[in-house]
Amino acid sequence: MDSKIVGVLGGGQLGRMMVEAGHRLGMPIVILDEAPNGPAKQLSGCIAHIDGAFKDSAKIKELKSRVDVLTVEIEHIDVKALYELDKEAPGSIQPTPHTLELIQDKYRQKVHLASYNLPISEFKQVSNVASLAKAGGEWGYPLMLKAKALAYDGRGNFVISDEKSAHDAASMFAANPLGFYVERWVKYTKELACMVVRSIEGEVVSYPVVETVQKDNVCHVVLAPACVSGSILESAKRVAESAIATFSGAGIFGVEMFLTEAGDIFINEIAPRPHNSGHYTMEACHTSQFENHLRAVSGLPLGSGALKVPCAAMVNILGASDSITDLQATMHESLKVSGATVHWYGKRESRNGRKMGHVTIVADDVAQLQDRLALVLAALPGGHADEARWLLVQPPSVGVIMGSDSDLPKMKDAARILEQFGVPFELTIVSAHRTPDRMVDYARAAHQRGIKVIIAAAGGAAHLPGMVASMTPLPVIGVPISGKHLDGVDSLHSIVQMPRGVPVATVAIDNSTNAALLAIRILGPPFLEKMMQYQQDMKHQVLEKAHVLESTGWKD
Amino acid sequence: MDSKIVGVLGGGQLGRMMVEAGHRLGMPIVILDEAPNGPAKQLSGCIAHIDGAFKDSAKIKELKSRVDVLTVEIEHIDVKALYELDKEAPGSIQPTPHTLELIQDKYRQKVHLASYNLPISEFKQVSNVASLAKAGGEWGYPLMLKAKALAYDGRGNFVISDEKSAHDAASMFAANPLGFYVERWVKYTKELACMVVRSIEGEVVSYPVVETVQKDNVCHVVLAPACVSGSILESAKRVAESAIATFSGAGIFGVEMFLTEAGDIFINEIAPRPHNSGHYTMEACHTSQFENHLRAVSGLPLGSGALKVPCAAMVNILGASDSITDLQATMHESLKVSGATVHWYGKRESRNGRKMGHVTIVADDVAQLQDRLALVLAALPGGHADEARWLLVQPPSVGVIMGSDSDLPKMKDAARILEQFGVPFELTIVSAHRTPDRMVDYARAAHQRGIKVIIAAAGGAAHLPGMVASMTPLPVIGVPISGKHLDGVDSLHSIVQMPRGVPVATVAIDNSTNAALLAIRILGPPFLEKMMQYQQDMKHQVLEKAHVLESTGWKD
Repeated sequence: MDSKIVGVLGGGQLGRMMVEAGHRLGMPIVILDEAPNGPAKQLSGCIAHIDGAFKDSAKIKELKSRVDVLTVEIEHIDVKALYELDKEAPGSIQPTPHTLELIQDKYRQKVHLASYNLPISEFKQVSNVASLAKAGGEWGYPLMLKAKALAYDGRGNFVISDEKSAHDAASMFAANPLGFYVERWVKYTKELACMVVRSIEGEVVSYPVVETVQKDNVCHVVLAPACVSGSILESAKRVAESAIATFSGAGIFGVEMFLTEAGDIFINEIAPRPHNSGHYTMEACHTSQFENHLRAVSGLPLGSGALKVPCAAMVNILGASDSITDLQATMHESLKVSGATVHWYGKRESRNGRKMGHVTIVADDVAQLQDRLALVLAALPGGHADEARWLLVQPPSVGVIMGSDSDLPKMKDAARILEQFGVPFELTIVSAHRTPDRMVDYARAAHQRGIKVIIAAAGGAAHLPGMVASMTPLPVIGVPISGKHLDGVDSLHSIVQMPRGVPVATVAIDNSTNAALLAIRILGPPFLEKMMQYQQDMKHQVLEKAHVLESTGWKD
Repeated sequence: MDSKIVGVLGGGQLGRMMVEAGHRLGMPIVILDEAPNGPAKQLSGCIAHIDGAFKDSAKIKELKSRVDVLTVEIEHIDVKALYELDKEAPGSIQPTPHTLELIQDKYRQKVHLASYNLPISEFKQVSNVASLAKAGGEWGYPLMLKAKALAYDGRGNFVISDEKSAHDAASMFAANPLGFYVERWVKYTKELACMVVRSIEGEVVSYPVVETVQKDNVCHVVLAPACVSGSILESAKRVAESAIATFSGAGIFGVEMFLTEAGDIFINEIAPRPHNSGHYTMEACHTSQFENHLRAVSGLPLGSGALKVPCAAMVNILGASDSITDLQATMHESLKVSGATVHWYGKRESRNGRKMGHVTIVADDVAQLQDRLALVLAALPGGHADEARWLLVQPPSVGVIMGSDSDLPKMKDAARILEQFGVPFELTIVSAHRTPDRMVDYARAAHQRGIKVIIAAAGGAAHLPGMVASMTPLPVIGVPISGKHLDGVDSLHSIVQMPRGVPVATVAIDNSTNAALLAIRILGPPFLEKMMQYQQDMKHQVLEKAHVLESTGWKD
């Protein structure tokens, strides 16, 4: 394509993956970085890159003279030079120098977000031990002390656990002339993140909300989508989109958030560039974060950020020592995992904690993702497979409800079958007549919580299955339970004879086994093989009995 | 990674996409090609590539001296030089020179395949008009006359439509010293293809079977998976795997096949390298054909070739003239399509018919793929969206069957609902008691044909739903049909009171509307929004009636 030429300040792995996306689009990219043969420069043969610091204003101007538009893979650049260049050719720096300036100073970033009433924790500037201890007195401990600038991957962040450690921070204040601010501690249960891309015209496209898992303050694993309810995914996405709408200029942004036990979302930090939490988009989404960044800054149409696979995970490959050979086994083992894609950044030297590559894993469902992730985690230096179990919680896909605990003996068979097939399910009591509000809440929310099928059991004037079916778009299976009178025909007719418009899939009286088997057939492809095996086993059992009968004779 | 260095003969778009895959693996790739700045060489900055012909044995040796393993992106290379190099360092040419030699001569390729009893059309060498006309006399016309060597993208292939045109071929025989052979015409209904990758140890991993659509003898569109039955996909895959098992050496192979009306598979041609019909694998499969080729030739573990999305299509962007600007609108429009990924090959000059790039489209189902593909096809120079309609036939996902045509009036409501929701379905008569064999065939094959739910209606001693349920792993919905006697309670009980192990989802007597609505709920996510809208509409209709009643009063 007759594309704009894009210049990038910084030539690490983010720049490298931008160049890769540029190749696909036929978009020439010129890199400015000190390393003559760093990750990004290794990737394009016909481009003369520039060797020099991405903070060096003369080099930035040299780069600008050779490209149509200039962007960053790191925010810690010389913003003054960018302001000058933007004045000469308005719109040729994306995102705008103002946005980069706001974000590179984390304190100004917070002031900006607060001015738009975006959800952030309380914060204030601190310049010495006294003001820090004052904040501790006001908000309690622990506190988060953060350097205003040049902080990333946990560097420049300090947890102040009590008054004593507040007083110990004196040396830090002396050592960092750019200053600090302090944040009230957010007691979070998970860290979430969301990539959002903004076009030059201000159009915003967001990616799925993911969960990020940190280890030693560095991103370790990313899970997409985050294992939280649909309503939390939705509100985190809205927060991220609203935040990015307040900045100017085009490009992709990473929004890091905290989720509290109460379900509240707080913005932690924002990055004005591709972000580690968005690497999974290369294999899992319609358009990668790198391609959408290039599309945004060069004025091409934005691509969809939707997942194209049901779920994905990303594992960072961090140097464990200064030996690269340590990581070869990790890469080699990861190549064997179905659904895993290995990315090696081409860095010549490893250091403890250095980002050397990453592995993305895609899967058809959470159980499969768990298995595949376990294999990759086990292959990390010092890693262990068990981690995958507690990182990923499989949400129930079948909800089993019954009108009364007296139905439980008859419903246990359903639970046994679901367990036997490895279907994640939940089982509880919801009564149409005694807990009508609970029934309404359950029915209305089920599909948002990831439930795929509801099994509802009831006896007598059995209203539960039909009422639930009227309030959910999910398939509802009704199990008529027999009582003292009428042999269950009362509940059978109450469940099956639904009016036109609201179907209930009715099974035989008291036959919760069949309700579970029907639910599994409805779940479809992941269980198709197992269902065929189950049918084969039934056949063999009956044939065995026939054989016994034939060989023993009916008399015995 | 401490990877082997791979040398590639040829530096076009196939080489380019290999280099791209190499970057991810940290695998250095050196290209030999005449064009100093061709598609593949543009992509790696720190490698000094070699300018020279990929048929030039001196240059091939120079390339070999700089790499660990040598492979190809085109089979028309100097095989003698490769034999020599392989003798010096056995195993350093992949696939083996013998395999490349067998495949580059299409006649020898056929002799080889025939010797393994692989399914190919009859063929024989012809050296003049007389032998060609003799073949015509024996097999009838049309005939396929093919040059033995240097033929691809339809070049070197000639359709001989009758005896007269056989006699007109004299000039061709004179012009091509490498010779010809003739093939008996295969009356095919579709062209299929399958990528198969072979490790050095002989392990074989195959990709999905796709349909390829040619235009002017050049690949135009690829559909993955092919819109054919599961059993045809399976047998085409087996044919492709068996064929590749007969060759030596590692690498990926493209197997082109014909499918006849009777369901027979014939191998057309084999390519010992990445292939145009496998480009879709980059976005749609766990491991791309390019990455798996590099893994194979360098001895890394092979990756899974499974689809990670439900379906995909690939559209070639061919030059329409010598102007590149013609194609910019195509690329720009394609960028707007959700699920589309645009690949530009970086060629500086366009020519009519030259492969300039391609677009891959992924989708959640065939209907979505059809819509997205239509947008991309409409954006091609001279393209039109309608093509997507006839290229992709949506297989039915719901099967509606009934015991008798007398049930049809009651089952029409189901058909109306399915049509209203845009669900592809089929409707036919299958009787348990009058066509038991047909019932068995239907039930056993349904899941292989892509059916997701079966709706079965029956009256009286209604056996159809239960019998079908006993022979399929799919969910079966039973509709009891009322007859002259017993008000339908006979069929209700016959359908719902199934034994443990074989569930039938029973709906109300004669209520085929609910059967269809239940089927749609079972189909799940693609129809969730529509189902919620349907439920809202029902509510509004009832409220409207309530309003009319309240405002008019019960007396009127």
